[in-house]
Amino acid sequence: MKRNLLFLALLVALGSCNQGQKTDTAVAETPVETPKQSFGIVIHGGAGTILKKNMTPEKEAAYKAKLEEAIRVGYEILENGGSSMDAVEKTIHVMEESPLFNAGKGAVFTSEGKNELDASFMEGATLNAGAVAGVTNVKHPISAARMVMEKSPHVMLAREGAEVFAKEQGLEIVDPSYFYTERRMNSLKRAQEKEKIELDHDDKTAAFYDADIKDSKFGTVGCAALDKNGNLAAGTSTGGMTNKKWSRVGDSPIIGAGTYANNKTCAVSSTGWGEYFIRGVVAYDIAAMMEYKGVSLQEASSEVIQNKLTELGGTGGIIAIDHDGNVAMEFNTAGMYRASMNASGELYIGIYKE
Amino acid sequence: MKRNLLFLALLVALGSCNQGQKTDTAVAETPVETPKQSFGIVIHGGAGTILKKNMTPEKEAAYKAKLEEAIRVGYEILENGGSSMDAVEKTIHVMEESPLFNAGKGAVFTSEGKNELDASFMEGATLNAGAVAGVTNVKHPISAARMVMEKSPHVMLAREGAEVFAKEQGLEIVDPSYFYTERRMNSLKRAQEKEKIELDHDDKTAAFYDADIKDSKFGTVGCAALDKNGNLAAGTSTGGMTNKKWSRVGDSPIIGAGTYANNKTCAVSSTGWGEYFIRGVVAYDIAAMMEYKGVSLQEASSEVIQNKLTELGGTGGIIAIDHDGNVAMEFNTAGMYRASMNASGELYIGIYKE
Repeated sequence: MKRNLLFLALLVALGSCNQGQKTDTAVAETPVETPKQSFGIVIHGGAGTILKKNMTPEKEAAYKAKLEEAIRVGYEILENGGSSMDAVEKTIHVMEESPLFNAGKGAVFTSEGKNELDASFMEGATLNAGAVAGVTNVKHPISAARMVMEKSPHVMLAREGAEVFAKEQGLEIVDPSYFYTERRMNSLKRAQEKEKIELDHDDKTAAFYDADIKDSKFGTVGCAALDKNGNLAAGTSTGGMTNKKWSRVGDSPIIGAGTYANNKTCAVSSTGWGEYFIRGVVAYDIAAMMEYKGVSLQEASSEVIQNKLTELGGTGGIIAIDHDGNVAMEFNTAGMYRASMNASGELYIGIYKE
Repeated sequence: MKRNLLFLALLVALGSCNQGQKTDTAVAETPVETPKQSFGIVIHGGAGTILKKNMTPEKEAAYKAKLEEAIRVGYEILENGGSSMDAVEKTIHVMEESPLFNAGKGAVFTSEGKNELDASFMEGATLNAGAVAGVTNVKHPISAARMVMEKSPHVMLAREGAEVFAKEQGLEIVDPSYFYTERRMNSLKRAQEKEKIELDHDDKTAAFYDADIKDSKFGTVGCAALDKNGNLAAGTSTGGMTNKKWSRVGDSPIIGAGTYANNKTCAVSSTGWGEYFIRGVVAYDIAAMMEYKGVSLQEASSEVIQNKLTELGGTGGIIAIDHDGNVAMEFNTAGMYRASMNASGELYIGIYKE
C-alpha cells in the first residue's frame, strides 16, 4: 500500500516535471508499443545570437531543410531497429557535409587560417567513449571519434596523432582545402580586424561580445538518440572557434562537457561557448542531477542551462534524450538550430525561442 | 525547534559519514580556531601496483621524503595565509622537479621517445580552470595550466600552441632533453618489447595487465588545498602513459576527469588509468554526488572509486579536500603515494593500503 502511494507520488512528480516536453506523447498515442520499443532522436546545429530579423526566408528554409534531412537519416536507422550509435554517426555526417554548420565542411578558421576539427562520441550502454581534437584532414571527425572508441585503447587523440590513427583505420582523408569556405574566411577576417581594435583598447574579451563573431564561433553540431533496444548514444562535432589561437581545445571533444551518454540516465550533446561548458562539466552535470537527485531530464537540463550555466556567464545550449525517449532542447541564447523525432514519427524543427 | 531537530539529525548523519577520516580532528583539537581558519592540503604521487615486497627501504624513504618536502611547501603557504592556488602550484613544482614521479622531470616517454606533458588547474571560488596537453618544453606544466586559466580566455590549450602561449607568458622553457631520464627510457623499451609480443598474439590490451608497464604509466602528481579564506583549489600534472601513441590525451588535462574544484563541495585530483577517469568523469562525479545527494566527501570518494570506477574496470585513485578541510585519499590499486596535512600541522604519509 505504502509502495503504491509512493509510486503514485512519483508519477505525479514526474508528470509535473515533464510539462512542456514534446515527445512523451509518442508512447501514449501508440499503446501497442511496449516501452522497450520507444525510441527517438534529437539534434542541434549550434546555438547563438540567431535572430529572425537577421534571417532571410531562404536561409531559414535552408537550415530547416538540412536539419530535417539529417534527422530523417538517423530516424530511419532507429525505426528499422538499427543502433543509436549508427543513428548518431550518420545523422552527424549530413551536418558535417553541409557548409551551413560549423563542423566538417563548414568549419571556421583558426587565427592561422587553418580548419582544426574536434569531435566526441559516447555509448550509453558501456560508457565507452572516443574523441579527436584538432584534426585537419579527416572528412568526418565524428567517425574518427567513434573509431577511437571502438578501435583504440584510448578515449582522446589529438592533432597529427589522431590523423595518423584515422588514416590507419581507413577513414576518408581529404585535403585540408576541402574545409575552405568563403563565408568562414570572411568571418576570420572580421574577427581579426576586431582583434586589432581590441589590442588598441586593451580589452581582450571584446570579440566575445560581438554578435557576428559570437555566431561564427558557434554552430557546432550534435545528436543524441535512443534505439529500440534501450541504448543511448551521443555525439558532437565542431570546427571550434573563429580566430582561435594556441591550439585551443573547446568542450566538443571533452567527454562530460561536450558529450555524455549513459543508459541509466540520458544522452547529451552541448553547443556554445566551450570554456563555460568545460568548467560546468555541462553534459555530465545533467546526467548526474538526474541520477543523484532523481529529477527529470527536462528539470535537470533547465537547471543546468538556465541557472547554473547562466550564473557562470556562459551561453549556449544542449539537446538530450533520456532512457524513456523524453527529449530536452535547452538554450540560453536567442536561438538554437534543433530538431527532434519521436517513435510516432512526429517531427519538430526549431530555430528561435518560442 | 523543528529546525534544531533537523540540525541535530544532520550532525548525526554527518558524524556517521565521516568515520575513518583523519583530519577532522584538527578543528576539534584547537577549539580557539574559527571554522573559517580551517585549512589543509593533500597530495598524491600516483597510484598503481605499488607493493612493499618490490620496494627497497631506500626507495621508500626517498618517496616519503619527497612527499613530505612537497606538502610542507604548500602547507607553509596556507599557514601564512596564502592562497590555495599558490599552495597547489608550488607543491606540484616540487614533484615536477623530482624524477621520482611521472610528471615534469620524471615524465615517461611516448612511443616516439618524446616526453609530452599534461596538466590542469582549477579554482574553487570562481570555477575558473586551465589546462595544457602535450607540451614538450615547459618546465612546470602546472604553471602553464594556471596561466591558461589566468591569462587567456581559454580553458585548454594543446601542444605547440600551448608552448607558444607558455613562452609568451614568460614561463621557464627548457630543452626537451631536460625530461630525459634513463629509468623512463628503460620503461619505454620494456613496453615496446611487450608490444611486439602483443602484436604476435593479437591482444592489444595485454600491456595494461603487465604490472611493470602499468606502474610506469601511473605516477601522475596532484594536489588539493583549502586556504584560510575558505577557497579550494586543485591541480594535476603528468607525463602521461609510457609508449603512448597518436598524441593520446589522458584524464590529467581534462577538467571534470583529472581535476575539479568548487568551494561549494570539494577539490579533487585524480591518478590512474586515464581512459576510465574520463569515461567516469571521476573528479566532478565526487563533487556532484556531494552536492546532489548531500553525502560526505569520504562517502562520495569511496562510492566513486571503490564501486563505480571498479565496476567500469578502471584502476587508480583520487585525493580530495572539502570546504571544511576533511580529506579523502581513495584508491583501488595496491598503493598510492600520498600525504596530507591539516590545520594543526599533523602530517600523514602513506604508500600502501592500510
